[in-house]
Amino acid sequence: MVSETQHLTPVSATDVQIDGGFWNARQITNRDRTIPAITHQMEITGRIDGWRLHWDEGKPKPSMQQYAHFWDSDMGKWIEAIGHSLRTHPDAELEKSTDEVIDLIAGAQQPDGYLNIYFTGIDPQNKWRNLRDWHELYNAGHMVEGAVAYFQATGKRKLLDVMIRYVDLIDSKFGPDEGKKRGYCGHPEIELALVKLYHATGEQRYLNLSKYFVDERGQQPHYFDIETRERGDDPAKFWAKTYRYCQAHLPIREQTTATGHSVRANYLYAGVADIAAETDDAGLVDISRSIWDDLTQHQMYITGGLGPAHANEGFTFAYDLPNETAYAETCASCALVFWAQRMFMIDPDGRYIDVLERALYNNVLAGVSYEGEHFFYANPLASYPNVNPFDRFSGITSEQHYHRSEWFDCPCCPPNLARLVASIGDYFYVATADTLYVNLYNQNHARFQFGGSDVQIEQQTDYPYDGAVSFTISADQPTTFTLALRVPDWCREYSVEVNGSQYIANPERGYVHINREWSNGDQVKLSLSMPVERMLAHPQVRQDAGNIALQRGPLVYCLEEVDNGAGLANVVIPPDAELTAERDDSLFGGVSIIRGEALRIEPAQWNGGLYQPQSAVKQTQKPFTFTAIPYAFWANRQPGEMRVWIRES
Amino acid sequence: MVSETQHLTPVSATDVQIDGGFWNARQITNRDRTIPAITHQMEITGRIDGWRLHWDEGKPKPSMQQYAHFWDSDMGKWIEAIGHSLRTHPDAELEKSTDEVIDLIAGAQQPDGYLNIYFTGIDPQNKWRNLRDWHELYNAGHMVEGAVAYFQATGKRKLLDVMIRYVDLIDSKFGPDEGKKRGYCGHPEIELALVKLYHATGEQRYLNLSKYFVDERGQQPHYFDIETRERGDDPAKFWAKTYRYCQAHLPIREQTTATGHSVRANYLYAGVADIAAETDDAGLVDISRSIWDDLTQHQMYITGGLGPAHANEGFTFAYDLPNETAYAETCASCALVFWAQRMFMIDPDGRYIDVLERALYNNVLAGVSYEGEHFFYANPLASYPNVNPFDRFSGITSEQHYHRSEWFDCPCCPPNLARLVASIGDYFYVATADTLYVNLYNQNHARFQFGGSDVQIEQQTDYPYDGAVSFTISADQPTTFTLALRVPDWCREYSVEVNGSQYIANPERGYVHINREWSNGDQVKLSLSMPVERMLAHPQVRQDAGNIALQRGPLVYCLEEVDNGAGLANVVIPPDAELTAERDDSLFGGVSIIRGEALRIEPAQWNGGLYQPQSAVKQTQKPFTFTAIPYAFWANRQPGEMRVWIRES
Repeated sequence: MVSETQHLTPVSATDVQIDGGFWNARQITNRDRTIPAITHQMEITGRIDGWRLHWDEGKPKPSMQQYAHFWDSDMGKWIEAIGHSLRTHPDAELEKSTDEVIDLIAGAQQPDGYLNIYFTGIDPQNKWRNLRDWHELYNAGHMVEGAVAYFQATGKRKLLDVMIRYVDLIDSKFGPDEGKKRGYCGHPEIELALVKLYHATGEQRYLNLSKYFVDERGQQPHYFDIETRERGDDPAKFWAKTYRYCQAHLPIREQTTATGHSVRANYLYAGVADIAAETDDAGLVDISRSIWDDLTQHQMYITGGLGPAHANEGFTFAYDLPNETAYAETCASCALVFWAQRMFMIDPDGRYIDVLERALYNNVLAGVSYEGEHFFYANPLASYPNVNPFDRFSGITSEQHYHRSEWFDCPCCPPNLARLVASIGDYFYVATADTLYVNLYNQNHARFQFGGSDVQIEQQTDYPYDGAVSFTISADQPTTFTLALRVPDWCREYSVEVNGSQYIANPERGYVHINREWSNGDQVKLSLSMPVERMLAHPQVRQDAGNIALQRGPLVYCLEEVDNGAGLANVVIPPDAELTAERDDSLFGGVSIIRGEALRIEPAQWNGGLYQPQSAVKQTQKPFTFTAIPYAFWANRQPGEMRVWIRES
Repeated sequence: MVSETQHLTPVSATDVQIDGGFWNARQITNRDRTIPAITHQMEITGRIDGWRLHWDEGKPKPSMQQYAHFWDSDMGKWIEAIGHSLRTHPDAELEKSTDEVIDLIAGAQQPDGYLNIYFTGIDPQNKWRNLRDWHELYNAGHMVEGAVAYFQATGKRKLLDVMIRYVDLIDSKFGPDEGKKRGYCGHPEIELALVKLYHATGEQRYLNLSKYFVDERGQQPHYFDIETRERGDDPAKFWAKTYRYCQAHLPIREQTTATGHSVRANYLYAGVADIAAETDDAGLVDISRSIWDDLTQHQMYITGGLGPAHANEGFTFAYDLPNETAYAETCASCALVFWAQRMFMIDPDGRYIDVLERALYNNVLAGVSYEGEHFFYANPLASYPNVNPFDRFSGITSEQHYHRSEWFDCPCCPPNLARLVASIGDYFYVATADTLYVNLYNQNHARFQFGGSDVQIEQQTDYPYDGAVSFTISADQPTTFTLALRVPDWCREYSVEVNGSQYIANPERGYVHINREWSNGDQVKLSLSMPVERMLAHPQVRQDAGNIALQRGPLVYCLEEVDNGAGLANVVIPPDAELTAERDDSLFGGVSIIRGEALRIEPAQWNGGLYQPQSAVKQTQKPFTFTAIPYAFWANRQPGEMRVWIRES
């Protein structure tokens, strides 16, 4: 299986034209609203000016309080989002203004190649002194990703060359060789970025450096202990208490469960999968599968959210999935998408794409408002007035309802989400020498090469609201290859027709494989049955006991107060309730909603104190027709309560 | 009603001899185990040695890290517990060793009367510079309470005189007069202590000072702003964010709801009620009732626990009562007992004692282990492995189960609980010129004066496990007074017999009033029907929706894993389950447990991932006989899950 990995290649979004449907609408919003909103924030917060390395009176100056030691990463993701967008939708004006920023960045590079706003301009004496906390390599990684994306979109090497010089400096400072420090970053990210740089440049050293970072992590003597003592501090006083927080408690080959800060974790695991693929490392493949299974079978919200806890922005323990206080950071689900794609590369199985799709259509999309200019950092699965997943215990929150923000002091999520939406075409198809895996469904045209043939494929579908997908193949000559159509885990009945004839095959590892000689105009129809499903959580998830969640296709639904009134804890969807999906064109450009009969179980009246004998309370069960909307679109209308998990009795 | 307050007097525990039953057992444990355990901690932590004001090499030295700025308060409560204990159970050895500690304390008093271990010995330059955070007046208050209790028990004035000198110094420094600072304590406590000192000494200045502290709180210009600026700090950077934390956001006469740190809150409200009673202040009575109603009708756990939140150790918002993460500090429920008693003094109504009893028999008693030497600070209403109400979000707790501790860095709870248990006799009876209110039921003999007569009353009962209470009256001559027997809010059927004849009267404000001429040997029988009650929470308590709690008499029950297996979230007590109370003499010296039929609703098997369509899961409903024990006794056996609120479907 691993030996196959060498041959798996995601089809670049460059060759995938999303020309309608669900993702076209999201990408338009991303280009027209989200990226410009982020650009605006980059300007007014001083992040662009920061590269000038001098600060005019009255203008924002980078400081630790402003999280300026992460500024470069925000910039890197923003440039990456622009790069992905330009790749499929060229925009001369956007390219020009980005070139100007890149000129500034290049001007900030130090003679030795060093590049970092904060540590160059504000705190140069602390360069490379605290890899555990201060994110220099993480910043470098995001800038590398931005540089590669911009280069791939525009062919312009300026930023790429800047980052190559910087990475060469990093390579000269860190590694196993005599005279180098055996360091690695507290916030993994550079590992996967270096693999991208290796692919963009063909330079093996970058792959080697990435592999070094992966393997060195958590080794003894522990680098974070060493550098802490060098600063005169006591490693035992680490503010996060344990190196589990940054997945450095053990060497990666001894790790078997997902732990710590969930964004760091998923970036690291993505990098590990990259190294496993590139170096044919069966041990790392096994480790990756073990951590994957733990994460997806014990620690993932039904929305694809990760990390229930605010304190460590991460994982707690198996089956601990509180809803109101779920942290479930937008970035963590973006990172899960990145990792899932890479797991598919080392182990081509639809189960990875099932998780990718769950995260994408639910937690990731909830991270941005429908209009595109407001963002969630934390994505709870239930919301109640005065409850804020950032500050559950303060008792002094003044905000009536949790809502999306224009920006954050630490704005990692908005550009992360923007770069993912801009590059969504990259996730549609994966090709091998003889197989085309179709992983995501949405209206699009795409081009491939099989043997010497140019092949085109067109999808027509209203997915994710409808499970019917029509494919039209075009080829300049009859061409033999396997079309592997993903049958998602949520789908229990499906059918395939090829040129009008039923095609019968059992899915293998999540795919129906259609191997034939394809001719111009061949038609394939995939029908994925998409009933409303009442979902249960594993019985050890105590927070969901006695509750169901509604899912249809890849979409998880929720009840909002604006549709259903307040007091959602007293709403019950009985086991025999009929549930129907309906199109509502008045909402969010047209979505499928779910309606059905529910009961509101409440006392006819409540006399006296907080607690009453049940025998003294006359409960009423008032039937009403509930409306559930996709979780991805919650908090876009009148604010109020929200719940994903609903009582069923 | 207020005018009546002058005549209400709690009967001192000095005159109440608890000679058997529930509270006798708890008091024996308190004397033999709890107080000695606290004494041991006082010794080994350096709290006793601290009064020497010099620190030998290797011995504990007070420091801010050790919460030494609260040490005096621990000492005050510990001496108070000993005082209460000596009052009813003289112990020459204990008195002698306490006298020696008092000698040390007296030796630490400064020439001007100042007394505080931390600010005398460690940080004298910061005396009186941060009343908001550093608890000097709070410490003084607890030491005053200790001094008064010790004086009342032993007649010895040494500590009382020390505290009088210190309070005179405080009185010279704080107040409305020219040349004094308009300060008050960030942690209320001294208000109620000064009223005790006023009662012990008759000195009106102490009452005036208390009234000043009550009225000055929250006035503008704000004292905490002023002192913060005097320290060169910015009031806007207050670590607790808002003066609501310390109930100083508004003058007390503008406050209507319970807010902030729950121990501070209840101590303040108790002091307010004292001032209302002593000064016949109808405005303060109204304010007290308003806050009381808010607290008990919107913000109190069924266990009498207060304050759901760790971050502010206090209140959040109405109907927000999470169970697993409930903070519900032991001290807060002790303070609620103190306040409830004082509310009764200004407004003689059984509803205050109903709450007092709820807090006492549930949250307060859960604060100490059955054997008496381990303590809870936080008292959650549900417990699950790895979940700690102090650290819900860390994700890195290493303790498998939440359990009681021998001690705490900030050990406010153990001596608070010890002083309350030692003085429990003070809460049994309240006398006016012509009425004897019987507030708590337990085996005891007590003595009163009515007119010129000596009256004795004896209770025989197995309360709280049985609702039958027999009273025998002895009097040296026939004496007319009203015996007012409390009919608790949980009791819906009761009967009274006087000398074998049924006595019919409707309770007024929670009491059956029996006015007659009592003769030697008169017998009264009160029968309080005590069925097992299925309790519901108000429908706005979302955390309890669909759940019931079991209560019998004043005791709230819980399910523990040791009796019922793990997975308590999947246990359902159906609406028609028969519930029976049974005596179990093998547990905790003999308690009533509750048994009944429950269902364990679980999948027959669980295949695959975390989330499954309900239609693919075969649920099984396995009946079993559950066992519930009083919440007061949880976590005394094999550790495991616990739940108070149980699903009913």
